[in-house]
Amino acid sequence: MADQNSDRETGSKLDPKYDSNGLITAVVTDDSSRDVLMVAHMNAEALKLTLDTGIVHFFSRSRQQLWKKGETSGNILEMTGVRIDCDQDALWITARPAGPACHTGATSCFYRKIQDGALEQAE
Amino acid sequence: MADQNSDRETGSKLDPKYDSNGLITAVVTDDSSRDVLMVAHMNAEALKLTLDTGIVHFFSRSRQQLWKKGETSGNILEMTGVRIDCDQDALWITARPAGPACHTGATSCFYRKIQDGALEQAE
Repeated sequence: MADQNSDRETGSKLDPKYDSNGLITAVVTDDSSRDVLMVAHMNAEALKLTLDTGIVHFFSRSRQQLWKKGETSGNILEMTGVRIDCDQDALWITARPAGPACHTGATSCFYRKIQDGALEQAE
Repeated sequence: MADQNSDRETGSKLDPKYDSNGLITAVVTDDSSRDVLMVAHMNAEALKLTLDTGIVHFFSRSRQQLWKKGETSGNILEMTGVRIDCDQDALWITARPAGPACHTGATSCFYRKIQDGALEQAE
């Protein structure tokens, strides 16, 4: 186990640690503003499609199906780079968004800040 | 349900949507470099401590206990801001790190990029 963990942390082999639902967390930041746009999940198929096409795909936990981000709205995310963390259970994707990343129409899903225990519009 | 979801998305009430294990995903970025430093999880206690003290706390899934980041290493994360996403199931924390955020000694846990199906050191 120790060696397996060590390989995962230091090696050059892509070996994502999917959770019990077969998913890995993916953070997407804007390549230009560097804001965090959204946090979602990928299964192996979504990750493969993202890497193969350069267009970000997720797995929708609510709909339980592959989700090409922006397929309906047109607001796709064009991947510019992807990193994986030390224990390979999270991805950091940099992307060029074609439009608002959030389904609410906001540029980022993180449009509210926590201030004094309540939520306020973020700048 | 529709109203509950709508309130959660548009309201000013902090109402984190914890998963079945009582956890919410937290992304930490460097307030200065704006790099993603790490992705971890918080339970309600860790979030409260983070908000109350301004020092980032997580819940360690491997150790199943509260985890004050940097308690042993000294590499604490001083929170400079925190946002929550549309459906309130993810947090984006900006922080000033006292040292390397990763237990490997790397500045960020995301020290490798995926390139042609393998991992390479990120710049």
